Amino acid sequence: MQGMNNRLHIGLVGLGRMGLNLALNMLDHGHEVRGYARTKATVDKAAAQGIKGAYSLEELAGQLKTPRLVWLMIPAGKAVDEVIEQLAPLLAPGDIIVDGGNSHYRDTLRRYRFLKEKGIHLVDSGTSGGVEGARHGACCMVGAEDEVFAYLEPLFKDITVPGGYLHTGPPGSGHYVKMVHNGIEYGMMQAIGEGMEVLAGSPFKLDLKEVARVWRHGSVIRGWLMDLMEKALAKDNALNGIKDIAYSSGEGLWTIEEAMRLKVPAPVITAALLMRYRSEQEESFATKVVAALRHEFGGHNVARK
Amino acid sequence: MQGMNNRLHIGLVGLGRMGLNLALNMLDHGHEVRGYARTKATVDKAAAQGIKGAYSLEELAGQLKTPRLVWLMIPAGKAVDEVIEQLAPLLAPGDIIVDGGNSHYRDTLRRYRFLKEKGIHLVDSGTSGGVEGARHGACCMVGAEDEVFAYLEPLFKDITVPGGYLHTGPPGSGHYVKMVHNGIEYGMMQAIGEGMEVLAGSPFKLDLKEVARVWRHGSVIRGWLMDLMEKALAKDNALNGIKDIAYSSGEGLWTIEEAMRLKVPAPVITAALLMRYRSEQEESFATKVVAALRHEFGGHNVARK
Amino acid sequence: MQGMNNRLHIGLVGLGRMGLNLALNMLDHGHEVRGYARTKATVDKAAAQGIKGAYSLEELAGQLKTPRLVWLMIPAGKAVDEVIEQLAPLLAPGDIIVDGGNSHYRDTLRRYRFLKEKGIHLVDSGTSGGVEGARHGACCMVGAEDEVFAYLEPLFKDITVPGGYLHTGPPGSGHYVKMVHNGIEYGMMQAIGEGMEVLAGSPFKLDLKEVARVWRHGSVIRGWLMDLMEKALAKDNALNGIKDIAYSSGEGLWTIEEAMRLKVPAPVITAALLMRYRSEQEESFATKVVAALRHEFGGHNVARK
Amino acid sequence: MQGMNNRLHIGLVGLGRMGLNLALNMLDHGHEVRGYARTKATVDKAAAQGIKGAYSLEELAGQLKTPRLVWLMIPAGKAVDEVIEQLAPLLAPGDIIVDGGNSHYRDTLRRYRFLKEKGIHLVDSGTSGGVEGARHGACCMVGAEDEVFAYLEPLFKDITVPGGYLHTGPPGSGHYVKMVHNGIEYGMMQAIGEGMEVLAGSPFKLDLKEVARVWRHGSVIRGWLMDLMEKALAKDNALNGIKDIAYSSGEGLWTIEEAMRLKVPAPVITAALLMRYRSEQEESFATKVVAALRHEFGGHNVARK
Repeated sequence: MQGMNNRLHIGLVGLGRMGLNLALNMLDHGHEVRGYARTKATVDKAAAQGIKGAYSLEELAGQLKTPRLVWLMIPAGKAVDEVIEQLAPLLAPGDIIVDGGNSHYRDTLRRYRFLKEKGIHLVDSGTSGGVEGARHGACCMVGAEDEVFAYLEPLFKDITVPGGYLHTGPPGSGHYVKMVHNGIEYGMMQAIGEGMEVLAGSPFKLDLKEVARVWRHGSVIRGWLMDLMEKALAKDNALNGIKDIAYSSGEGLWTIEEAMRLKVPAPVITAALLMRYRSEQEESFATKVVAALRHEFGGHNVARK
Repeated sequence: MQGMNNRLHIGLVGLGRMGLNLALNMLDHGHEVRGYARTKATVDKAAAQGIKGAYSLEELAGQLKTPRLVWLMIPAGKAVDEVIEQLAPLLAPGDIIVDGGNSHYRDTLRRYRFLKEKGIHLVDSGTSGGVEGARHGACCMVGAEDEVFAYLEPLFKDITVPGGYLHTGPPGSGHYVKMVHNGIEYGMMQAIGEGMEVLAGSPFKLDLKEVARVWRHGSVIRGWLMDLMEKALAKDNALNGIKDIAYSSGEGLWTIEEAMRLKVPAPVITAALLMRYRSEQEESFATKVVAALRHEFGGHNVARK
Repeated sequence: MQGMNNRLHIGLVGLGRMGLNLALNMLDHGHEVRGYARTKATVDKAAAQGIKGAYSLEELAGQLKTPRLVWLMIPAGKAVDEVIEQLAPLLAPGDIIVDGGNSHYRDTLRRYRFLKEKGIHLVDSGTSGGVEGARHGACCMVGAEDEVFAYLEPLFKDITVPGGYLHTGPPGSGHYVKMVHNGIEYGMMQAIGEGMEVLAGSPFKLDLKEVARVWRHGSVIRGWLMDLMEKALAKDNALNGIKDIAYSSGEGLWTIEEAMRLKVPAPVITAALLMRYRSEQEESFATKVVAALRHEFGGHNVARK
Repeated sequence: MQGMNNRLHIGLVGLGRMGLNLALNMLDHGHEVRGYARTKATVDKAAAQGIKGAYSLEELAGQLKTPRLVWLMIPAGKAVDEVIEQLAPLLAPGDIIVDGGNSHYRDTLRRYRFLKEKGIHLVDSGTSGGVEGARHGACCMVGAEDEVFAYLEPLFKDITVPGGYLHTGPPGSGHYVKMVHNGIEYGMMQAIGEGMEVLAGSPFKLDLKEVARVWRHGSVIRGWLMDLMEKALAKDNALNGIKDIAYSSGEGLWTIEEAMRLKVPAPVITAALLMRYRSEQEESFATKVVAALRHEFGGHNVARK
């Protein structure tokens, strides 16, 4: 891998919230970015912010210097497979694809082997820090072959906060560590939610925003989630504008599945996910069963529709 | 305690679903029952079913032979304290009060000591089996002094199914065992509910009532709750008429509190109770917090009102 | 499907605890059984109890009348695939394989399609009731094509308790229903365990065996698990001879995975499985982390090795 | 409340890890501290670090200027009641006691009313940030009457990090908020523990310390607990020296009890506590029950002692 150079030329696939901000972050550090997205409008919008556009993967691949570096910032799952299948014939041995999304590590391993046969390197970068991190300094957990990581390290250093990148090990390991990171995140968020709900019901009239604020400074539970908590409550101290539905996007579930596979009891991360699933339900059939059983044996009052 | 006699004369306080049926059960076995309830209408209604009425506790106490036997079948809590306070001066040493409701065992211990000073015996009978059991054969867990239990044993034998009564130990122990019984019941019911909900979402078109039916016969999970499950589904196979709210009346919570006191991890009984609490909520503030945090860091879509 | 006949000739593959007892059960009802197991000793042992043996699958297939009926009572997983692969070429269109074990329903669907191409019918019978049920009357949840079920129904009627079989639907549905049955079973067993542990720590000296006994008669939580609870405690009232490790064999996990797939919150069944996993651990790394963190911030005492 | 003065004279009761460091923190900011502890040795040790000693509560009270300010930094529970009972007759109307420990908020409310009758003010300061925070800048959640808080505010400003104190409301509210803080902490710590355990079992060879390090920089779950995680792993990357027992000191349990009282489902905080309780067990009777039941119905292998 010759021609190592601190100024890289990156083909960024996916210009959504995360991709666009990461591209701008790369530009800030002197890298060259060529952006592609499925819709022309998205590419044009990015172009308005200084990111040169490509209107097809062919065009993108054609404009990158070798070894080509293509960074995917697209939703995990089928989309990644489709792009990789389309990209593979357009790339040459020695080229590199970085999957910066939340792919399942097993998918990453599978794709790594697929590309490896063609001499193309796959790198997985679990990217944390949200949209703000993508823009101003992310946290990257990078699974890569040693030589490939060495080549990319300056880029990772540039786009992350100081101390904010790690070569976690071989391909797949970056997404693995990111998966677990998100599992922990689920547990922490639900813990905060439960605590806040107790505060909201307390016999004292507490100012939740102020509590979040003081907890940000010097407490054991200070951290970015608490920073965000204050921010959210500062906008709307009772969260009146937000519905009580919490979606999930996969990594929490995968962490639990992995824990189960390893027979690691993870009741907290699991409970956090189950409460999200519960929140998505319009009606709980399990609860109807419990209510019906109570009614049967006890003649207990049952709420009827 | 002389004059032991298989035909007892019972003053039954509380003529609701449980009390009335228990009174009829006692009558069936040749005991004499005098019933009292707070409202005249309830007493009259019981009288129409052959239960002689009393329209005040004074009247009730006055009509019982000594040693008087007063059986309380009233809601746990303050009502029991009130009745005991009113009854105490009307009774004499050697008289017996049976608390057949779901009192907290600590309340029972306190009331036992209070009555003990006056020479009045308190017996706690945890009564299981629902309304049907009260009428045709219950399950009684009886906390009582040995001599008092021996005196009452024929009555307990009469009103329970064969094998269906136990002298659990000294006063308080009956309510303790019943409390734990109900805790287990919470866990079992929620387990059935969860399983039924999975069945309802299965890729097969399952007839839930038929599944409950087959599980009643020969399966590992057969038992009365499954009998009731079939009964409820036979009326309404999708439980369309029942709202997904499951109330709770105390014993589940007390079991958990007792488990916590003993540092016994009881995650299943606890989860069962928490899902009931969740079902009572119109809105989950914890979930709103999680949704708000997701929105803050990820710009994730959040359901807005 | 002609030649329907109430007396069937069954080739039983697998003569372990469940298979052997089921074979004896079939014999009791006038069916003819030819048994096969991997080891000669097992076949000989069954022969000593009146079950004619076969020492290879070829021999077994050769001795069955057509349509051949082969009943598998072997551990779920690879063993079932291996036997089916070996059996398929030995069977003819119209023959039937019943998988009476705890296969995953997706495996059953896959095998059903594989055999269907060869004209061989696969039937899945989730079998509950334990060893005793296998011997004297089981509970069978049967997934099968309608015509095949009709042909086998007399057999299912014979080997189950009255009311103890159900045609749950097409192939796969029997194992699905059995999977959920076992999930519920996990929750119920853990609920009983937690309750028993509270009783064991109670301030009263309770006789656990007697409590289980009384709960069997007339209580809401009566059922077979409580019958077994009394039986186990009657042998050893403090379970002194049993180690606190609870293994699991798959269906609990699968129920949870299915629940997760359907986004059905199943916290009770899940907690039951996680406590089993916890019980298998010699050491909990998660707990070490918690202890280490406590030590770091609080200088709390930490148990050191 | 006159003579308000930024330089306060504090009588500090309790010179353990937290108390001693808080005293040094106060000294740093120019306040005068007189320290008392039950044993002479502890007082002498503090004196060696510049804290003037008192060898009895009488001596302490005698040396403070009015309005006297006594700060308790002692274990929650009986110790606080004992000290307050001894202190009350030594103080005069207008004097102030600050309880800086983790008292239950209901105890605080009770003590507040007791002292109020004597004209003595009770202030509750939930103090977070661990030993390090006590020394160099804590986080204080302060329940106090408005006027009293205004008097003490300069002191709270001095001993906390910038932004690190909050007047949460009337007496009791500080301990309430701190209780919930600790509940959240339980959930977060267990979430981290579970994640770390998955990492430790991963198919990759992950360097846990390095993972904790990268998560500290830019990730969503960054915060002080992650800082401590790295610190702990840096000393011992497999936590080999730490036993898998996690004790608890009350606030987690109280948070759950409060949640239950409010019917707030808090499954994550609860699971975190239950796993701690599980870790304290030498043997799980619940698991023995499950194992025994499995054995009874299935003839499953059971680990025997």
